Amino acid sequence: MSGRVEIVPVQGLPEVAAGDRLGELIAGALAGAGEEVSTADVLAVAQKAVSKAEGRVRDLDDVAPGARAQRLAKNLGKDPRLVELILSESRSVVRAERDVLIVETLSGWICANAGIDASNVPGTRRVTLLPEDSDASARRIRAEIGSVTGVRPAVLVADSFGRPWRLGQTDVAIGCAGLAPLDDWRGRSDRQGRGLAATAVAIADEVAAAADLARSKDAGLPVCLVRGLGRFVVVDDGPGAGAIQRPDQRDLFR
Amino acid sequence: MSGRVEIVPVQGLPEVAAGDRLGELIAGALAGAGEEVSTADVLAVAQKAVSKAEGRVRDLDDVAPGARAQRLAKNLGKDPRLVELILSESRSVVRAERDVLIVETLSGWICANAGIDASNVPGTRRVTLLPEDSDASARRIRAEIGSVTGVRPAVLVADSFGRPWRLGQTDVAIGCAGLAPLDDWRGRSDRQGRGLAATAVAIADEVAAAADLARSKDAGLPVCLVRGLGRFVVVDDGPGAGAIQRPDQRDLFR
Repeated sequence: MSGRVEIVPVQGLPEVAAGDRLGELIAGALAGAGEEVSTADVLAVAQKAVSKAEGRVRDLDDVAPGARAQRLAKNLGKDPRLVELILSESRSVVRAERDVLIVETLSGWICANAGIDASNVPGTRRVTLLPEDSDASARRIRAEIGSVTGVRPAVLVADSFGRPWRLGQTDVAIGCAGLAPLDDWRGRSDRQGRGLAATAVAIADEVAAAADLARSKDAGLPVCLVRGLGRFVVVDDGPGAGAIQRPDQRDLFR
Repeated sequence: MSGRVEIVPVQGLPEVAAGDRLGELIAGALAGAGEEVSTADVLAVAQKAVSKAEGRVRDLDDVAPGARAQRLAKNLGKDPRLVELILSESRSVVRAERDVLIVETLSGWICANAGIDASNVPGTRRVTLLPEDSDASARRIRAEIGSVTGVRPAVLVADSFGRPWRLGQTDVAIGCAGLAPLDDWRGRSDRQGRGLAATAVAIADEVAAAADLARSKDAGLPVCLVRGLGRFVVVDDGPGAGAIQRPDQRDLFR
């Protein structure tokens, strides 16, 4: 199956604050914008809005860096308070070289700085941490949208990650609910009846990347509505984006 | 700037054969489908169609594996003829472990099996190699579309690559013309006037990923028209997707 895909940035979402029910805010913004949501839609939500709603914001002035953080920070040329926060959000350090600190986060994502980001947070020393469990965040947002609208679109939480070998960042999924994160082609055939080389398509990551194209980093539009992917939307919340994490024993780059 | 993005799979492209002028075929398919193309559009073309048009198809029966290929193939459990082809398309081997062979291709892409793929190629032992220079392919396709239609949309060549740390493949750009491959945010500010943490967004990779969502692996639709990204389309062909290649000295994972 193939077909048109449309990505619509959702206008009118207020600035998000700790304790906000983000799904209700999204449902309100959709209604205000006259966008009807369906069970075949996917709502892609920027991680930063989710983190703010969940109070995952820290002030660097409140952080006391330990000896390890101080040592690492000196080697990397980073703020030791930021490094302390990164380490406290990490299971392990994957690379600490030059000015780069790549870790495995407590939720299992491998990324720079444990996904901690200082941009788009009001106040000079405020940083956002990743949600503690972005799959749970996606499930909660989906349920909230469902209780307001009576309709349960899929929800994904997206963040911008860098990549080995390639410059620039792309948005990837760190959480999802109601979306098949991987489209598995193993065992299926192509038009000549031959087995396909692709094992699986990382649908959730491709949706996150697509949504990022429809909004600008400075536009304050953390939510996009993605239409035309109903074949990947499922009634149950599904395994979440955690299913995209490559198991250590199948990974050659950590 | 933000706005709606639409991805339309292009119907009616014939099976592509060696020597075909792919840009002319695409222009014909667009006209037949009643899709008007504009200078603000991006046409995403699957690598396999480009490779077929450029005659980059090989028969494994014509390949005589050397000693190194035979040794590697044995260790990895792969066809020695395929390994010989992979090595002949590679500058260096990045990883050869378990059943995985990751190389840097002659054009500088780091990917599994030098991008050589056996699916969707008629004939049991036929495989496609990557185009020799996918940026040049994109420029040529763009020029051909321009000479048929009088309009020069951006063109990108997409292929499915796996990733460290994450399961599944996503489409990325291996060539482009007329598309800004990276949107550089360094020096720009967010809504609070603070510097942004993201250094650059890999636009061409996000467009490739978005286009992959609109077509199915088995649908025989190698081309998608992407609308709404005119702010990234430029008159000159630009640096191409080669600008996305991370220089060795800025890479911690090879």
